[in-house]
Amino acid sequence: MQGDTTASDRPCDPRCFLNSAGGQDEGNTGHGAVDFPVAVVLPAAGCGERMGLTTPKQFCTFLNRPLISYTIESFEKISWIKTIVVVVAKESHELMLHIVKTFRHTKVKVVEGGTSRHRSIFNGLQVLTESTEGSSLPRPKVVIIHDAVRPFVEEDFLLKITLAAKEQGAVGAIRPLVSTVIATTSESYLDHSLERAKYRASEMPQGFLFDIIHQAYQLCSEFDFEFGTECLHLALQYSGTNAKLIEGPPTLWKVTYKRDLAAAESVIKETLSLSACLISGTMAETVELASKVQKNLAAHDMAVDVFSCAKEYKELLLSKTRNFIQITVGGGRLSDIAELIKLLEETNHALLYPVVIIWVHLYMSEEQSHRQKPDELTPIMDLAVKAKQGNILLYGIQVIHSKVPELWEKSAERLSELTAALIRDRNPAFTGQLLQA
Amino acid sequence: MQGDTTASDRPCDPRCFLNSAGGQDEGNTGHGAVDFPVAVVLPAAGCGERMGLTTPKQFCTFLNRPLISYTIESFEKISWIKTIVVVVAKESHELMLHIVKTFRHTKVKVVEGGTSRHRSIFNGLQVLTESTEGSSLPRPKVVIIHDAVRPFVEEDFLLKITLAAKEQGAVGAIRPLVSTVIATTSESYLDHSLERAKYRASEMPQGFLFDIIHQAYQLCSEFDFEFGTECLHLALQYSGTNAKLIEGPPTLWKVTYKRDLAAAESVIKETLSLSACLISGTMAETVELASKVQKNLAAHDMAVDVFSCAKEYKELLLSKTRNFIQITVGGGRLSDIAELIKLLEETNHALLYPVVIIWVHLYMSEEQSHRQKPDELTPIMDLAVKAKQGNILLYGIQVIHSKVPELWEKSAERLSELTAALIRDRNPAFTGQLLQA
Repeated sequence: MQGDTTASDRPCDPRCFLNSAGGQDEGNTGHGAVDFPVAVVLPAAGCGERMGLTTPKQFCTFLNRPLISYTIESFEKISWIKTIVVVVAKESHELMLHIVKTFRHTKVKVVEGGTSRHRSIFNGLQVLTESTEGSSLPRPKVVIIHDAVRPFVEEDFLLKITLAAKEQGAVGAIRPLVSTVIATTSESYLDHSLERAKYRASEMPQGFLFDIIHQAYQLCSEFDFEFGTECLHLALQYSGTNAKLIEGPPTLWKVTYKRDLAAAESVIKETLSLSACLISGTMAETVELASKVQKNLAAHDMAVDVFSCAKEYKELLLSKTRNFIQITVGGGRLSDIAELIKLLEETNHALLYPVVIIWVHLYMSEEQSHRQKPDELTPIMDLAVKAKQGNILLYGIQVIHSKVPELWEKSAERLSELTAALIRDRNPAFTGQLLQA
Repeated sequence: MQGDTTASDRPCDPRCFLNSAGGQDEGNTGHGAVDFPVAVVLPAAGCGERMGLTTPKQFCTFLNRPLISYTIESFEKISWIKTIVVVVAKESHELMLHIVKTFRHTKVKVVEGGTSRHRSIFNGLQVLTESTEGSSLPRPKVVIIHDAVRPFVEEDFLLKITLAAKEQGAVGAIRPLVSTVIATTSESYLDHSLERAKYRASEMPQGFLFDIIHQAYQLCSEFDFEFGTECLHLALQYSGTNAKLIEGPPTLWKVTYKRDLAAAESVIKETLSLSACLISGTMAETVELASKVQKNLAAHDMAVDVFSCAKEYKELLLSKTRNFIQITVGGGRLSDIAELIKLLEETNHALLYPVVIIWVHLYMSEEQSHRQKPDELTPIMDLAVKAKQGNILLYGIQVIHSKVPELWEKSAERLSELTAALIRDRNPAFTGQLLQA
């Protein structure tokens, strides 16, 4: 009953969508190969009634950001993609402009859609033919059409689509069929099953020479505007271009149902949990604890870089991670954490993904600990409330140093387990809490 | 690019799969209509290489239980289904027997599979023709064939399938096509797209008169045994029975990729979070707090039943909820919580789903609180560690009563937010912690 691919549904390079805090990447694969203008059209005017939600699915939010912003980010960070036209319903226009502003998308043009998917795409293409005032934007050579609700499209695959579009005029992503496809009689009986090997599911993205798809839409009949399902079909029918089909990765999946939002969130959370920066301080015990945590978190698939001091600003800034662990002795100094928060805020490090800070309080003895007295607790809670407004999630964990090696080891394990859970979950409800390791 | 259905992907009655702690339901819809023996065959011999995981997907675990056990539960709780034959690979036989024992599945027979899906199904059917010693099991009239990795199948739909199978001899679930299906040329160009209205995706479950599908397999060619994809097709080819097709709900979806496990977990967690029992005590302040929490959690779609005392055992036992909130004044008595845990353990309430207990400590004044002194903390952590072994997740939350109405209201809100998050997440890493509301 299943297509037989062994590919994973994770991004190939899981950090690919965390490249930067919001701008372009530094131009890696493909930049050299794509020496012509490429634009993207993202139809996002659908109402998403299938979700069982009132919000259209492209505007559903997880980790404080609407789905469509993740999709835009996937394109925006690719240096050779110059323009992203997002086509929205009239009633979502303001919302979309707000999203563009909030998440500082710089390549996006927002356009109002038509009464069907094809009319919306055509509106998007039309914008690319107009020379906007003050814009030196060239008419694109290749245009990529994608779905707003397939957030995990990757540069490698977009490069393949783009180059093939330039060569062939039209190109579409395909996937093996997930279910057997059957033909039904008018009385809902089985007529026959299709031979799986001959058929594929047509997916997004699709790429076109701009002139080919633009011409197809200009010639397109009213019927096709209203009921046509495939841009590939229009390119064939109206521009005589037979599309090349390229098998895409499972990461192209489409967020369709409410459960898919949970799946998308889990993919992002997993990716965000692959690395962390740990600021150890210089005391023997904190350095030792840092080393234990580093080792334990490796077993959770988290690569931890250890820095001796938060002042190594430059390295922290260069770091792609969204997770910071700071170990201090006793209550530590609130100002150290406040400084880290300030740094992260100044560099917009939490603009697109929530940043986790875990403040570890190491007490050198059970007696010394007087853990979590009210007068100690309030400042971390206050700081956490403030940080949360900037998408920074601050949690505290208390650890007691033991001279008994087994107990000390066990504390480090519990600390690591709590740390991994806090980073993995990114739950805003628990910020400002001081947990016990 | 999408089939157009407005149905949700949630179970119609979201509590339907929480009917009981492990046994049958009390026989509701359909019991009267199904007065003939019905058996189920669950082929589960696949290796699941598509997941990107080493464990076959049917044995992947979430909330402490393998996926296949959720699927078994969906059938086992239906009174008119008498036997569930699970067909597994030889190397998974021991594991499957262990799962049956651990989760006390009572209707399951475990059988070893063949070298293909069809051989495995045939093995499952063969078992149903043998009169087992000591078993008075009649040869089934109708057999339902399902996938082990579609855990959310519901009684209503199974009833439809079963009755139609008895009428028509063969019946299959269908769904609208998710993607446009295209025919490709041998050089990977677009040949044509299929007209969506004429085609459907063939899904599971399928139902058959036992004799029809058994005969089909007995006559089945080696080629079909090896490469055939559809039981419906075999019924047509070898028994001359043209299957009736019934549109199924989106809940029939199949766990295929790793992300689908996260989606399945989120569906279960959401369902588990729909209700809670709150044990308020009888003091004016605790009763008031209970009422505030009840109101706040309603906004989180959680229906909270308030009991004045945990001694109302009978009502707690009858309750279907897996979430308990107990409010005590000050440190409270650990024995109250220990008693609740004991009750839940004795009734196997946490056998299939983790149970959450939130122990709320209400302090009557800031001064009185001396919150979370080490000597107070250890017992709840110890109790939590022990409870966790029985799949019971114990968390603590401290609240300070304030005479200032706004502060008191705010504390109740924070308590509700923490409670909702703990219940929703069911994170074992945070058990034994004492959070601050």
